[in-house]
Amino acid sequence: MGMEFSLIEMIRARTRVARDDVPVGIGDDGAVLRVPVGQELVAAIDTMVEGVHFLPGTAAADLGWKALAVNLSDLAAMGATPAWALLALTMPRADAAFVRDFADGFAQLAQRHGVALVGGDTTSGPLSISVAVHGLVPPGAALQRAGAQVGDVVMVTGTLGDALAGLYALRDPPHDEPPRAALRAMLIERLTRPVPRVAAGIALRGLASACIDISDGLLADLGHICVASGVGAELDAPLLPRSSALRALHGEAQSLEFALGGGDNYELCFTVPSAQVEQVLADLGRIGCGVTRIGHIVAGGGVRVRGAQGQWLTPKMQGWEHFA
Amino acid sequence: MGMEFSLIEMIRARTRVARDDVPVGIGDDGAVLRVPVGQELVAAIDTMVEGVHFLPGTAAADLGWKALAVNLSDLAAMGATPAWALLALTMPRADAAFVRDFADGFAQLAQRHGVALVGGDTTSGPLSISVAVHGLVPPGAALQRAGAQVGDVVMVTGTLGDALAGLYALRDPPHDEPPRAALRAMLIERLTRPVPRVAAGIALRGLASACIDISDGLLADLGHICVASGVGAELDAPLLPRSSALRALHGEAQSLEFALGGGDNYELCFTVPSAQVEQVLADLGRIGCGVTRIGHIVAGGGVRVRGAQGQWLTPKMQGWEHFA
Repeated sequence: MGMEFSLIEMIRARTRVARDDVPVGIGDDGAVLRVPVGQELVAAIDTMVEGVHFLPGTAAADLGWKALAVNLSDLAAMGATPAWALLALTMPRADAAFVRDFADGFAQLAQRHGVALVGGDTTSGPLSISVAVHGLVPPGAALQRAGAQVGDVVMVTGTLGDALAGLYALRDPPHDEPPRAALRAMLIERLTRPVPRVAAGIALRGLASACIDISDGLLADLGHICVASGVGAELDAPLLPRSSALRALHGEAQSLEFALGGGDNYELCFTVPSAQVEQVLADLGRIGCGVTRIGHIVAGGGVRVRGAQGQWLTPKMQGWEHFA
Repeated sequence: MGMEFSLIEMIRARTRVARDDVPVGIGDDGAVLRVPVGQELVAAIDTMVEGVHFLPGTAAADLGWKALAVNLSDLAAMGATPAWALLALTMPRADAAFVRDFADGFAQLAQRHGVALVGGDTTSGPLSISVAVHGLVPPGAALQRAGAQVGDVVMVTGTLGDALAGLYALRDPPHDEPPRAALRAMLIERLTRPVPRVAAGIALRGLASACIDISDGLLADLGHICVASGVGAELDAPLLPRSSALRALHGEAQSLEFALGGGDNYELCFTVPSAQVEQVLADLGRIGCGVTRIGHIVAGGGVRVRGAQGQWLTPKMQGWEHFA
């Protein structure tokens, strides 16, 4: 069930990344890869389906970028350095222009992180994309969901809720004046071209006690850390970092809901022993990654959110789960 | 975009395989895996889509088995020892019975080869399955499509064409007497429960000059070896191994067509320097794997087939290519 030849050649030509640890790449039954001595392998797979994870008509280049981005985000959450990817591309018909643009979008992000596309499969069927990625990490250094301790500080990179606002902007394009249109374009780009926090994940090795990327929404994903670690978390709503674009277009109350429940975000949420917080602020600051304390880990379970007046809030969205 | 919790737990519980090289398995953003020093990693990905690669209504357990089998077949073609798998399962709705049966079928084959399912993703959408597999091979020992030399003998494992006959049997179930029904059931099982030639692939390390698994059909896949190696091949039709079930149900002429063009076969086709042929026969015989010489490699390009009277044949099917 190999790739149709001209398509695979097109993808190969457009995604070439030189790595000397790929003795056999695209074009055989499997790729042969060299894991350096003294490194562990981190592997993840993620699928995007038309109509479920992206709107019909989404630009092929954006899909190529995002299919890799959501996987690199998984590596970032593990603190792994990206290395190789496999691509399974299913589409209704052999559309050379689509494949070309898809490969270009994929390559734009792959080259940024030196990721080699080493194999894949193209088949006909309803449009969907699975990517498997592989990264490297020193032994025992991978960040995990388990490990958060009572008293640890909860932190996030970047800003929350923008991608969901981007989805609203795409679905219901309003007609208004240029300044708001520019803000809207920024939010749409957060949805269509998410930037995985690879450098931040690597910087958090040895500092974060637990880490996850925000794909389902802050509450849901921090909830995963809590379950895996056997702890609870309390967040302070006023601390949640939100972009000025999100606040300007959606106001305080809705931007808070988006920040708590909006998925497709791909920032990192992590916990840090309080003694390490200054180090994290300094290290992430040095690589230009925004980072914010948003709460702390408590005994028990579940995630609670405190409002500006100290009252417990009841968020409307609890995050997006498939099949929920 | 993580797995829905109860589904992932069901899959995890049913696919548990103990390996001490998986520090972090299912349930985090990525798996952490230890590649032994002195081994190279072999990685492949394959997708099966309902209505394209399998008929609607195919039993979930058969799908679980086959989704892994087609990937292990890729590892076999590389001569790699299977180790780990990632699963991306897309299905229209969260169907616990389907997932349970799928996981059981997957586990049946995984346990046979000690393959640990280390991660995955379940999403909603049209039924399709992508599996990425990882195997291990000593440095430089991976079998490849390139490497066939003029004068090498072309060989195949097992019998050819059975899976295509199984597809015919599934699509047009005839009403006839028990003996023929039993033959038909054998052919259907070749389609629904292919047995990847893992041990044969490992045995061929250092012996085969080129190797591929027969997924698109003998002519197409041997053609891939020829293109990658810059050679041609000549096959002798009477030598092509065909099961007695295939011959009994389809006769001489059609069974030959099926053997040449039928896909979904998952036998290995490989080339061997003539000095090594006896060794191959002995080694594969020792592990109980049928193997047959079917032709030889020639200068030039393309694959030609000689009939019993020495005449060149013109096969009707040239093999199945997606988007062809």
